[in-house]
Parts: sequence; C-alpha cells; structure tokens
Amino acid sequence: MNKFTPSGLLLDTSAFHVLFDAVAAVGATPLGGLNRVAASHEDGQCRDLVCAWLEQRHFEISVDRVGNIYALLALAGPTAPWVLTGSHLDSQPRGGRFDGAYGVIGACIVADAMRTCAQKGFSHNLGVVIWTNEEGARFSPSMLGSGVYAGRYTSDFALSRQDASGVTLAQALGEIGYLGKSEAPAVPAAYVELHIEQGAMLESSNAEIGVVEGNWGAVKYTVTLRGTAAHTGPTPMEQRRDALLAAAKLVVACRAISDATGGKLLTSVGRMDIEPNSSNVIAGSVIVYADLRATDNALLTDSSLAFERAASTIAAEAKIELDVQQVVNRSAGVFDTDLCALMEQVATAKGYRSMRLSTIAGHDAIALCPLCPTAMIFVPSKDGISHNEAEFTSTTDLEAGLDVLGGALHELLCRPIGH
Amino acid sequence: MNKFTPSGLLLDTSAFHVLFDAVAAVGATPLGGLNRVAASHEDGQCRDLVCAWLEQRHFEISVDRVGNIYALLALAGPTAPWVLTGSHLDSQPRGGRFDGAYGVIGACIVADAMRTCAQKGFSHNLGVVIWTNEEGARFSPSMLGSGVYAGRYTSDFALSRQDASGVTLAQALGEIGYLGKSEAPAVPAAYVELHIEQGAMLESSNAEIGVVEGNWGAVKYTVTLRGTAAHTGPTPMEQRRDALLAAAKLVVACRAISDATGGKLLTSVGRMDIEPNSSNVIAGSVIVYADLRATDNALLTDSSLAFERAASTIAAEAKIELDVQQVVNRSAGVFDTDLCALMEQVATAKGYRSMRLSTIAGHDAIALCPLCPTAMIFVPSKDGISHNEAEFTSTTDLEAGLDVLGGALHELLCRPIGH
Repeated sequence: MNKFTPSGLLLDTSAFHVLFDAVAAVGATPLGGLNRVAASHEDGQCRDLVCAWLEQRHFEISVDRVGNIYALLALAGPTAPWVLTGSHLDSQPRGGRFDGAYGVIGACIVADAMRTCAQKGFSHNLGVVIWTNEEGARFSPSMLGSGVYAGRYTSDFALSRQDASGVTLAQALGEIGYLGKSEAPAVPAAYVELHIEQGAMLESSNAEIGVVEGNWGAVKYTVTLRGTAAHTGPTPMEQRRDALLAAAKLVVACRAISDATGGKLLTSVGRMDIEPNSSNVIAGSVIVYADLRATDNALLTDSSLAFERAASTIAAEAKIELDVQQVVNRSAGVFDTDLCALMEQVATAKGYRSMRLSTIAGHDAIALCPLCPTAMIFVPSKDGISHNEAEFTSTTDLEAGLDVLGGALHELLCRPIGH
Repeated sequence: MNKFTPSGLLLDTSAFHVLFDAVAAVGATPLGGLNRVAASHEDGQCRDLVCAWLEQRHFEISVDRVGNIYALLALAGPTAPWVLTGSHLDSQPRGGRFDGAYGVIGACIVADAMRTCAQKGFSHNLGVVIWTNEEGARFSPSMLGSGVYAGRYTSDFALSRQDASGVTLAQALGEIGYLGKSEAPAVPAAYVELHIEQGAMLESSNAEIGVVEGNWGAVKYTVTLRGTAAHTGPTPMEQRRDALLAAAKLVVACRAISDATGGKLLTSVGRMDIEPNSSNVIAGSVIVYADLRATDNALLTDSSLAFERAASTIAAEAKIELDVQQVVNRSAGVFDTDLCALMEQVATAKGYRSMRLSTIAGHDAIALCPLCPTAMIFVPSKDGISHNEAEFTSTTDLEAGLDVLGGALHELLCRPIGH
C-alpha cells in the first residue's frame, strides 16, 4: 500500500449539518432523541428525505427486496468495481440521533464531494448504502438488511420477521414504499462505515478517531418460559407456575455469569415480553431476550452453555415449559488489516489523534466482514452514552470523522484495481 | 332472624343461559375466554346489551359519574329501602367468561323473577348493579367503581386514572357513552354478590356453595425503578444502572418473603412495565406491580415492611432511583354474620352442600362491606383456574348459585324494615 497523500477533497460541512439536522427532526423526541424504528412511518419519511437529497444530486438509486437502499455514482464507468459506504437510519424506540444516521449522512456528503471534485481517473465507482433494520428493536435479529446482503439470511427469512404486533417486515416495508424489487449490487471492493463509538474508550484516551480493528463475539437468545396464567389471589403458592418469577431468576442468573468472569463477559437482558402483563394475573408466559458478548470465543461458548444450563434448571424447578432459541451467534473477528492501516494513515496525515479498538456493539460492517475488505471509523460518544436520547457527539468530532472518511474513500477510489 | 322458608320463586334458567352466552360473546377470545377490559369498546357493547335486556323488562336505569350502572325495581314503593345485587362486566386482557359476568347476569335473572312473581307485600326495593373497573387490569386500582360508591375514592380520583396509553377513565367512559351524570342511589339495606370462587377449596371439599365469611387482607405496590438506558454492548458492567436487573431481584425477593412464611402470606408480581423494552438497550426504567395477601393483618403489615426494605436495599446496591407507592392497603375483614347465616340456611334448605370460606381475591363486595351488611355466594371454579381463558364452572354449579341467590334475595326483600 502506498503512503496516504491528502487529496484536497473539499467536504461541504455546512451541507452535512443541514442534512444531519433535517434527518434528526424525523421521529425526534422531546428529549432530543429519536423514535424511528425500522420500517415505521418515521423511517419511511426519513428514507424519502435522504433519497430526495441523493436524487437531486444525480445518484442512481435502487431498493432491494429487503428495503436496503443503494445510491450509486458511476465515477469510473459501468464495468468498474465499486466501493461501498453507509450505515442505517433506523433507531431504538428512545435512541439517539447520531447512531447510524451519522454514517449515512457522512457517506452522502463524502460521495457528493467525489461527484463534484475536479479529479479524473477514478478506478472505482462509489455507492452509498442505507441498511434496513440494523437496530433489531422492531424486528429481530439486528443487522437484518446487511445480513441478507452478505448472504447470512435469505430475503424470505428477513421479510417474514414479525414485530411485537405481528406485522411482518414485508408488510411494514410495503406500507412505507420500500419493498423494492431490484437485485442487490455485486460484492464491493471494500466497505467503509463511519459511526459513533457508543462507548467511552476514545473519550477516556483523549483520541479523536477510532480505527476499529475487530469486533467482540456475541451470542443472543430468545428464551420462552410458559407457565399457567392464574389469579394472583386464590392460587396457592405451591401450585403456581409463574413465568415471570422464572424469568426474573434467569435475569439474575445471567448477570451472575458475567460477574463470575470479572467483567470479561458482558451479559444483558434488555427486554421481556410478559403475557398477559396484568397486575392481578400470574404471568402465563414470558419471552426473555438475553445477550452475551466477549472477545474470547472460547469464553463466549462456555458462558453460553452456562446460560442454557441456568435456563433449564430454573424452568425445571418452576415446572415451566422452556424453549431456548439462539438467534445470533457471531464470533469475535478482525477487520481488514490493510484498510485499518489506511484509516490510521489518513487520520495521522490529517493531524488527528487516533487509536485502535474493537467494537462491542454490533454494526452492519460486521455483517459485511466475511464478504469483502471492511473497515470502520469511530468518533467519540460523550460519556459513552448511546441507545439513549442523551447520546451526543460534538461538531468538531463529527467533522473529524467526516474528514477521515473522505480521505480514506478518495484513496480507495483512486487505487489500481485489485489493491 | 327467622328460619328460611323456600319461596317458590321461579327462576328462568334458560333465560340465564341465553343472556350468559350473549354476554360471553362480547370480547370473546379464540380460546373461549374474554378480552373485555374496563371501558373498552367491548365493555361498552356488553353494557349496551345488558342495559337493553333490563330496559325491555322495565328496570329504571341510571349511570353515575364513574360509569356504575344501577337498574332499580320499585317492588315496595318509592320510599322503601333497597337491597342491591350485582358484580362487574370488565375482564382481564385474557380472562375467563365467568368472573364478574356470572354475578351480573345472576342478578338480572333473579331480579326479573321478583318482578314477575305473584308475591305482594315486598318490604324492600331491589337494584341490580354493574360496577366499573373491578379488575384493575386497564385502570389501577381495582374495585374502582364500587370504591367510589363506598366513599373510599372520590369520583375525580377515579376519573383521572390513566391506562398504559395515557387514556383517562373519564375519556374511555365518554367514548363508550357511560360517563353518567346521575347521583348514585342511597346506601342499601344489604348487598349480596354472586361470584365464582377462583380457587379450588369448594371443589376439593366437594361443596356446591361457598358462603364467604370474610376477606384476606391485601397490600399492593407500584414500585418504580429508574436507572439509565444504555447500549447492551459497549456499556461496561460496573457502570450500568440496569432497572430490569433490579426489578428481577425484587421479584425474587418478593417470592422469598412468602416462602419465609410457609405460604401463610401470598405474594405476586404479575406485571412489569419496562422502558424502552428493546433487546439491545439496558432498561432505563421499570415499574413493578406487586401484591401481598394474608388473613393475619399483623403478618401482612410486617411483610409489607420487609418488601419495602428489600426494594430499598436492591435499589441502593444497583444505584437505582426508587419510588414505592402503596396503592391498596385493605385489612382482612369479616362479612355480615346474619347474612352469612341466611346464605347458609338457604343453601341447606335447598339441599346444597355448602361451606364457609374467606375470599383471597378482591371483590366489589369487599368495597361495600364497611357501608352496609354484605354477603357473597361462591360457586366452584374447575381446578381453581381463573384469570385464564380456561376458567370454567359447570351448568349445575351455575344454577345452584343462582338458586341460592334467588332464595336469599327473596328473604331479604320480604323482611320487615330494619331487620
């Protein structure tokens, strides 16, 4: 790889902030966050807004069967390979306005700068991508659109996923006009994603740019516990088959598995679906959504088995029917070494303090990793807060990430084919 | 009190079953249960149906400010005191078709028999009542309509209660046309309520009629736990303020308080409201709905304090903000001794096997107890199952309860004033 030389690409930071604020207004919550879950009315509005922006700038837009949006810029002619950049527009129900949207808007601004710059002789075309249902908040599992693109899931599997009301992804995409028919574009020469860190490592290390060299492993479960709905009054304690009590024990056990590793393993239960969830009724069924994460794949496997054993023991003691589904099992992995080196060179050449780190959170880039050389650039999250309306990244940090993305993509687009 | 002499009152059991089936069809679930929560569209339809039935039979119907429906029958002239009987039509979200509806329809059939019988010289008038929001499933607390009638709550308090979507009882009653303006009728000479047992004592004792001599005490809490919503991935374990983990510990602690009493104290958590309840987000807040029940008021008080201490300890350890609200605190109590004796005499005279028991479940009759002589008649629940779509009472048992209600009310309506 050649040493990186700054391109002199002019990024329109003012256009970045205008578009960022417009996107943040769609599904905005009173506390400054977002409620824009996948394929909701708000997600549809937001997709419309970004697509209109791209169309005005002559990007060629297509939507695949699972609602992933691709906006292509033929910088190097119809047969040239392409480089892909982007992220997602969906949010958690009370999420922040930076998660995902930053990477989409960053991609738009950088791509538009490529389109209008005087540069000739690009060797690659450039595509902006908006992935469907990265968050997994409305439809499970997360990273669903990118997972289909990467061949991890079929389109039919993705489209049949249901939200808590029984609406399928196919129905929801149809309602907002994003159930596309286009073939997804061919495998890119590289994928680069710009994102907020969602943790506090950059901030505590006083770094401005994070070069993501790998990802933690993650195993996720949906555990269904079925007891018997009954009156909370007259039902004798020894006759109860209380699904919520069993679920509570599982939540406590799940935390204990993390505690036993001294924090090397992260465990969480963020969601439980309780039926009928009425104060005077012993719960008849509860679905527990658990996740376990670690950098050590052996530890993760052992801990997953410990979790499954805990579920079995608790269910047996409570005379509860048990169904354990492992919905995600991704190993800890590494991102592309050359691309990591490039990101670092670009950051250094532009004068930013960078550091290498691993992502604990899931990202579309992790889904793309087995498919093509993949890289991620992180910028700091204030106090590490994310998936929260208080999520925040400063203007300076946002613009630094944009600058590094621009430099890195320019280098990739100009490289000889095959390098 | 005189010894009970059967009246020869003719009850139309066939009309009972027709009306019962018609009522059970409104809000029916595929599994044979009901979803007819208070002041819902279905509750409105069901009220309309029963009111039309009563109007056709010349009952004088009025609706008070909180939606309680009174259908009066002036058997003894406008100045005579009155006897009241009835129950509720609202159900749990997936409740059974007998709970509440049985007592309302039983009251209708018995009252109609009084109207059409040849008997002259009644000393009391008779009223059928349908109380609002007995279940407490949609609006908290339970027994809200009867609680207002008995002076436990003000109308304004009741009308301002909100469901999980923020809809007030006043709005919901307005939408179904049952936000009445009538004054509630004066305190009755007696209140008698017919109900299914919702437990298995009658069945296991091979009794057909339960004479309810008292009620268990109950203390109910809503406990709000506020932590910090955060990403389930990058947030370090030691920095988490996980409201769902704290809630789970409280559920387990609540059960342990019961276990320590050897089952003398019943404890339950049937409901938790989790925010944002997304699998990738550490819960920012959880509301836990707990109830404790006992016949021993001192044990109940001690256990309530133990529960509050457990909540404080768990919240402090988890760095969680805590708000504990005691929403119900009713002491164990006794029903009217003379009325209990009368119910027993009627059952015996009619050849039914009866037994005395205490109700663990809450009922509108408990709200009425401090106001006037009050009694309840129970019939068996198959396997003790209630607040479940599988709730069931046989036709024979339903008709036995109806027969005893008829005999007891006839006796009360003919008694000299003041006895």
